[in-house]
Amino acid sequence: MRPFHQQPDGLAQDGALAQQSAALVARLRVRKPRVHCITNTVAQNFTANVLLAAGCLPSMTLAADEIAGFVHSADALLVNLGTFDAERRAATAIAVDVAVREKKPWVLDPALIEASAPRAAFARALLARRPTAVRLNGPEFAALAQGAALEAFARAQATVVALSGETDGISDGARTLAVANGDPLMAKVTAMGCAASALIAAALTVERDALSATAAALTLIGVAGEIAAQTAQGPASFAVNIVDALYRVDAAGLAARARISAAKVS
Amino acid sequence: MRPFHQQPDGLAQDGALAQQSAALVARLRVRKPRVHCITNTVAQNFTANVLLAAGCLPSMTLAADEIAGFVHSADALLVNLGTFDAERRAATAIAVDVAVREKKPWVLDPALIEASAPRAAFARALLARRPTAVRLNGPEFAALAQGAALEAFARAQATVVALSGETDGISDGARTLAVANGDPLMAKVTAMGCAASALIAAALTVERDALSATAAALTLIGVAGEIAAQTAQGPASFAVNIVDALYRVDAAGLAARARISAAKVS
Amino acid sequence: MRPFHQQPDGLAQDGALAQQSAALVARLRVRKPRVHCITNTVAQNFTANVLLAAGCLPSMTLAADEIAGFVHSADALLVNLGTFDAERRAATAIAVDVAVREKKPWVLDPALIEASAPRAAFARALLARRPTAVRLNGPEFAALAQGAALEAFARAQATVVALSGETDGISDGARTLAVANGDPLMAKVTAMGCAASALIAAALTVERDALSATAAALTLIGVAGEIAAQTAQGPASFAVNIVDALYRVDAAGLAARARISAAKVS
Repeated sequence: MRPFHQQPDGLAQDGALAQQSAALVARLRVRKPRVHCITNTVAQNFTANVLLAAGCLPSMTLAADEIAGFVHSADALLVNLGTFDAERRAATAIAVDVAVREKKPWVLDPALIEASAPRAAFARALLARRPTAVRLNGPEFAALAQGAALEAFARAQATVVALSGETDGISDGARTLAVANGDPLMAKVTAMGCAASALIAAALTVERDALSATAAALTLIGVAGEIAAQTAQGPASFAVNIVDALYRVDAAGLAARARISAAKVS
Repeated sequence: MRPFHQQPDGLAQDGALAQQSAALVARLRVRKPRVHCITNTVAQNFTANVLLAAGCLPSMTLAADEIAGFVHSADALLVNLGTFDAERRAATAIAVDVAVREKKPWVLDPALIEASAPRAAFARALLARRPTAVRLNGPEFAALAQGAALEAFARAQATVVALSGETDGISDGARTLAVANGDPLMAKVTAMGCAASALIAAALTVERDALSATAAALTLIGVAGEIAAQTAQGPASFAVNIVDALYRVDAAGLAARARISAAKVS
Repeated sequence: MRPFHQQPDGLAQDGALAQQSAALVARLRVRKPRVHCITNTVAQNFTANVLLAAGCLPSMTLAADEIAGFVHSADALLVNLGTFDAERRAATAIAVDVAVREKKPWVLDPALIEASAPRAAFARALLARRPTAVRLNGPEFAALAQGAALEAFARAQATVVALSGETDGISDGARTLAVANGDPLMAKVTAMGCAASALIAAALTVERDALSATAAALTLIGVAGEIAAQTAQGPASFAVNIVDALYRVDAAGLAARARISAAKVS
């Protein structure tokens, strides 16, 4: 099996999947889910603004004596490993315990694990706690999957895995979807992937099928990226535009632009 | 007594109060006060840029062995509880001691205390140190005031209390002002309230009457928000515009737009 | 000798130096150097986006058990003292050891040392490790140089020293260059100097002569600032524009605008 994200067929739109993704944005704005984010200091501000633009309510505390309460009050949890200090690790252990115990959806973003053995070990331990979804980039996937293909890895870990790339591949081990929305400028803005992971956490609160929710969140940010690129002068105006687009895009606009489809495995 | 921020009369302009608020922006740009900010990592960058745009000089260190020196050199102190780690708590204790001892104005922003009992307890202990002003949102006010009305709470705590809302209510226990400036997009940008609290700290350095200073700072950011909304395409361009507007607005523009008035208590 | 940055002759362009600086931007985009940044939480997001826009790959971790690996994988290191907590100090000690041992270029930005004796002491200890370059503002230079002129201080410390100002002065103790590019709005955006220091670290990976590399990086950000100012409405749109300009400017545009020259010492 070829790695999913090289699948050219992923570029087409499946109408039913597009409608399903589009419906998500409307539900987020009604539900206004609380998303608690353990994320790195580089990403915190942008992630909070992305969540607010999409209609969600972010919180970000890491203090060991209050994070349990925040996760308990939240509808979903994001764990991003982008900065990796002792306090964040302690907070993560507590937060994941609460999420698992209370059956809240949670997302793991194993940022930059390919560059750090202790971080990779921590990511593996978190993966064993069965996050609802995992979103990662190619080098991170390679470090975790150790040669396994996307679908086999998702099956082995019993989670939804979203592999970002020119075309995103999302698999729950049985089904695999492709999302072809996005723009190359997304890779020139720090924390774009972290923010996408936060949107996945939000999406999981309004859609019980984790595969659909994950794909819908990536469709949403990908479409916003395409809208943003139309008037961007560079990566910073692109970052401004993408948050504005997340705020303005509606279900009809999303349905028209979504390039989501079931993936063929060759 | 009804909660102040439901007061429809707050929408009018009292000319003398508007002139007084407008004069503040000019004085800030001449005085260029140093404002030391203990604030959360989500808010630090935006808060620093808001202060710089208004003509102030921000500093942000939290290190226990240097914060006393920074507060001593500063003209005012902001204590925001938005992230609540051990180092921030230790830094806060030292910083407030210096501010109280040296009679420097300081502002408490008890962010998100409604979601965390330890944070609320910490906020109550800080309130007992008599901050010059407290700025908070509705749920935070409810958690602290426990049923008391704005004016009664301000009187009991012997501080100026600014309750943000569609119309802001500001009271020192004897007098109450209403500021009706602002835009709904302000609630869609993370750290907007934290930045408003930082501007209050700055305003307290150029106006001895803490009630007037607090109301003037909220008028300034509210007017900047209205200017920002005119050309915003969403919350991120709004955030860019509001900082630009804080930099560009002058006393005449502020006086023309200020909707500040004495509040009637029904 | 007068302090260098008061040198009016610094405004002219030396064609060969301008061409040399312009070539840098092209090499950065080909080499895509990894720059590990120990920088303050106020500056992290902006610094990462500045590096990405210039074609570099930033990383920012501070964890004691992984920073050695990150610095080892990086092409250059930035040490900025803008926030000064215990974890950052521990991380700095490890990171500088790796950089010195592996002969990687590293840059010291002794932010705000004039305001804090412990921070100044830490900066002096780092200076003794012989950073490849030091970038600082006037008050920081005054605190470190204690009356010495730029060239004498650079010679005594055996490093390249870049003193930011209306005209930047850059000296390696034998040669001194002046860069007159830039815009006053650069001083109204937090972390602009930190980002400039990060670009110096990046430049040192593609140019062995540390004096030329440092001057080229300051020319790059100064020219980007001039382009940014053309359409800025205030400091926040300026900050967006400067990142966009760093992304868009090419060698020809840089060569045309560079105002770099050898400095005369009077």
